[in-house]
Amino acid sequence: MKERRLLMIPGPIEFTDEVLDEMSKPTLSHLDPAFIEEFGQALEKMRRVWLAPHGQPFAVAGSGTLAMELAAANITEPGDNVLVVHTGYFSDRMADIFRLHGANVDIVPSAVGDLPGPEAIRAQLKAKKYKALSVTHVDTSTGVRADVKNLAAAARETGALVVVDGVCAVAGEELRMEDWGVDIALTASQKAIGVPPGLALLVASEKALAAFNARKTPVRAYYCDWQYWLPVMQAYEARKPAYFGTPPVNLVRALNVSLAQILIEGIDARFMRHARNARAFRAGLSAIGLTYVPVREELYANTLTAAYYPEGVDAGLLSRIAEEGVVLAGGLHPSIKTKYFRIGHMGMSDASEILATLGAIERGLAKSGYAFDAGAAVAAAQAVYKKL
Amino acid sequence: MKERRLLMIPGPIEFTDEVLDEMSKPTLSHLDPAFIEEFGQALEKMRRVWLAPHGQPFAVAGSGTLAMELAAANITEPGDNVLVVHTGYFSDRMADIFRLHGANVDIVPSAVGDLPGPEAIRAQLKAKKYKALSVTHVDTSTGVRADVKNLAAAARETGALVVVDGVCAVAGEELRMEDWGVDIALTASQKAIGVPPGLALLVASEKALAAFNARKTPVRAYYCDWQYWLPVMQAYEARKPAYFGTPPVNLVRALNVSLAQILIEGIDARFMRHARNARAFRAGLSAIGLTYVPVREELYANTLTAAYYPEGVDAGLLSRIAEEGVVLAGGLHPSIKTKYFRIGHMGMSDASEILATLGAIERGLAKSGYAFDAGAAVAAAQAVYKKL
Repeated sequence: MKERRLLMIPGPIEFTDEVLDEMSKPTLSHLDPAFIEEFGQALEKMRRVWLAPHGQPFAVAGSGTLAMELAAANITEPGDNVLVVHTGYFSDRMADIFRLHGANVDIVPSAVGDLPGPEAIRAQLKAKKYKALSVTHVDTSTGVRADVKNLAAAARETGALVVVDGVCAVAGEELRMEDWGVDIALTASQKAIGVPPGLALLVASEKALAAFNARKTPVRAYYCDWQYWLPVMQAYEARKPAYFGTPPVNLVRALNVSLAQILIEGIDARFMRHARNARAFRAGLSAIGLTYVPVREELYANTLTAAYYPEGVDAGLLSRIAEEGVVLAGGLHPSIKTKYFRIGHMGMSDASEILATLGAIERGLAKSGYAFDAGAAVAAAQAVYKKL
Repeated sequence: MKERRLLMIPGPIEFTDEVLDEMSKPTLSHLDPAFIEEFGQALEKMRRVWLAPHGQPFAVAGSGTLAMELAAANITEPGDNVLVVHTGYFSDRMADIFRLHGANVDIVPSAVGDLPGPEAIRAQLKAKKYKALSVTHVDTSTGVRADVKNLAAAARETGALVVVDGVCAVAGEELRMEDWGVDIALTASQKAIGVPPGLALLVASEKALAAFNARKTPVRAYYCDWQYWLPVMQAYEARKPAYFGTPPVNLVRALNVSLAQILIEGIDARFMRHARNARAFRAGLSAIGLTYVPVREELYANTLTAAYYPEGVDAGLLSRIAEEGVVLAGGLHPSIKTKYFRIGHMGMSDASEILATLGAIERGLAKSGYAFDAGAAVAAAQAVYKKL
C-alpha cells in the first residue's frame, strides 16, 4: 500500500518533482551571484505570470496573510476609505487588516456563497471617495470567484486603487493585471504558483507605488514596509546584492523553477487547463448529486470547489476519502463549517488527478452509505475531457 | 573541480543532509495528523533548546527581522519606555522596530566593536521605569557578544522585560532562557538552528505573555499579532488542527529534524563545541596577524568572527577566497563596511570546516599579496583542537 496520498486541498497543493528537488539543494548565500541571478529571474517571471509588464514584484518570506498585509499596510493611511467586496472568510480578513492600518472600511455584503451584485458595488463606489477597492478573487473559504475584470473597471472610473487578493487564484484563474487595471495582486507560494508554503508574493502597479510614495504617515508594520523591500527587489532584478532580511533562498529558487514551468506551459494555456479541470471535476460531482457552496455557476472558481456533503453524510467522509488515498479539506467558513468540504484543483493537477480524486470521493461516499450510481462521477469527468 | 563551495557566512549556514532531504519531501497538508505531530514535536523541542521549560514557542514563516517584530510589537504599547543596549546594526534595527510600535526608546551607546559598560546600563535601568530591556546577543554586523546573563539579572531587578535578539546566537551561544530570566529570545532558522531561511522563531516567557495579555491597545501589525498565533501554536502542541496562516510545512519539518539533531548532541555539548571552534578559528587568524572588530576578547562571539582586512588587502579578498572554495561575508556595519569581513562558524561546522576555511583564507591572502607564514593559521587552529 502506498503511504503517499494525493494532496487535493486548496493549498498546499501537489508540487512538481523539479520544484521539490530545488528545495533540498544546498543553500546558497543570499548574496551569491548565482542566487542573485535566480532571484532576479524569478522577479522578472512574476511580472510575466501576473501579466503586468510595468508592475513591481515583491517576494518575501511569509504566508498569504503576510501578502495581504504587504498590500494593505503600504497603501492605507489613517482615515482612508476602503471598500471591501464581501466573499467570505478571507474578505473579512482583508477588511480587518485594512482597519488595523487605519482605514475606514465599508463592506458590500453578500450571503454565504454569493457575491454582492455589481450594481451595488458600483453604487457604493460612487457614494464616497474610496482610496481602494479590495476584491478576493477566489475566496478559499467558499470557492466563490469574483468578476475582477469588471469590478476593476468600475473602481478605476472612480480613481480607487484595485487590490486583488489572489491567494487562491494567481496563475490559475484568468488575471490580466495591467489590462484590467489591477493595482495590487497578491498570492502565496503554495497555491496555483506551485511552490511549498513560505513565500508571500505580490505585484504592485505604478499607481500603487505612487500612492505609497505619496504617503504622509509611516507604514505601521516594519516587516511589511515597502520602503525596505523595494530597494532589495530592485537590486536583485538589477543583479546587484542588497539586504534587508535574509530571503528564503531555497523557496526563492523553487519559485524560479515553478514560474519557468508555468511560462513554458503558457499563461493562457494554463488558465484554460484550470477551467477544463474545474469543469470536468464538477461534472463528476454533479453526476452523483452533489451541490456547491457558490450559489450560481458563474461564481464557480477554477482553482477550488466547495461542495456540500450530501444528505446523511458528515465530515467523517474526509477521513474515508483519505483512506482511499486523497487528502481533501474541510469547511472553513464559520457559518457552514461542518456542512461542506473543499477540493483544490490547481497548479500541476490535470485529468489524472481529477479522476483519482473523483474516484476516491465515490469510494468514500459509498463507505458513508450514500446511494449513487457507482462510476458516474469519473465517467462524467472523463466525458468532459473527451470532448476537448 | 567542485562546483560546490563551503558556506561560512553568518547565515545561511551549511545544513545537514538530513535537514536538506526533509525540505524536498512532498508537502503534507498543514492539517495532516502526521504534520500536526511533527509541528507539535518541533515546538516542544524549541522549548528544550531554548532551555525554557515554561516558555511559549512560536514558529512563523518569515525572516529574523519578522522575529524581531514578533517580539517588539506584542509587548510594546504607545508610550512604553524601552532601553536598547547598543551593539551595532541590529541593535539599531531593534530600536527602530520598538519605536515604530510606539515605544520611547533610549539607547545606551557604545563605539563600533564595543558594548556599553554594565554600570552604564544598570544606571540607566534605574533612571527611568522601563517596560523592556533589549539586548542583541551577538550582533551579526560586528561579531560583538553581549553578556546576556548579567544584563538580564540587572533588568529583572527593575521589573523590565528582557528581550534577547538571538538571531546569531540561539543554539550556538550559551543561553539559559529561564535560569537567566530572559522573557523573549528570538532567532531565525538559517543561523545556528540549522534550517534553511524562512522561519522566524521565538520563545516567550510567562511574564512576556502576561504583558501581552495586559495590553490596553491593539498590536499594530496584523501578521505579528500573538492573538492569532498563540492559539495555533497551542493547538499544534496539543496535537489538534488549527489555522491562522498556512505554516511553511517543509521548513517546519526540517526544523523538527534539525532540533532533534541539536538535542542528540546535547545543548551544553553544542555550546562547548561552538566555543572550541571559535577559539580554534581565531587562533588561526591571529597567527597570521589578523585583528578583530570586537575590541576585547570577552566580546568575541562563538558563532561569528568579524575580522579586519590586513594592511594592503581589500574586499577583493573575498572573491579570492571564494575561488578557493569557501564563501565568506563582507562587512555590514555602515561605518566600517569596506574594512572588515565576517565568517560564520555555527551549526554543524566543526574542525574540518574551520580548517578548510582557514586554508582558503590563507590562500586568498597569499594571492592578495599579504605576507605571512604559510600554514601558520591552520597549524594554530589544529593546535587548539589537539589540546582538547
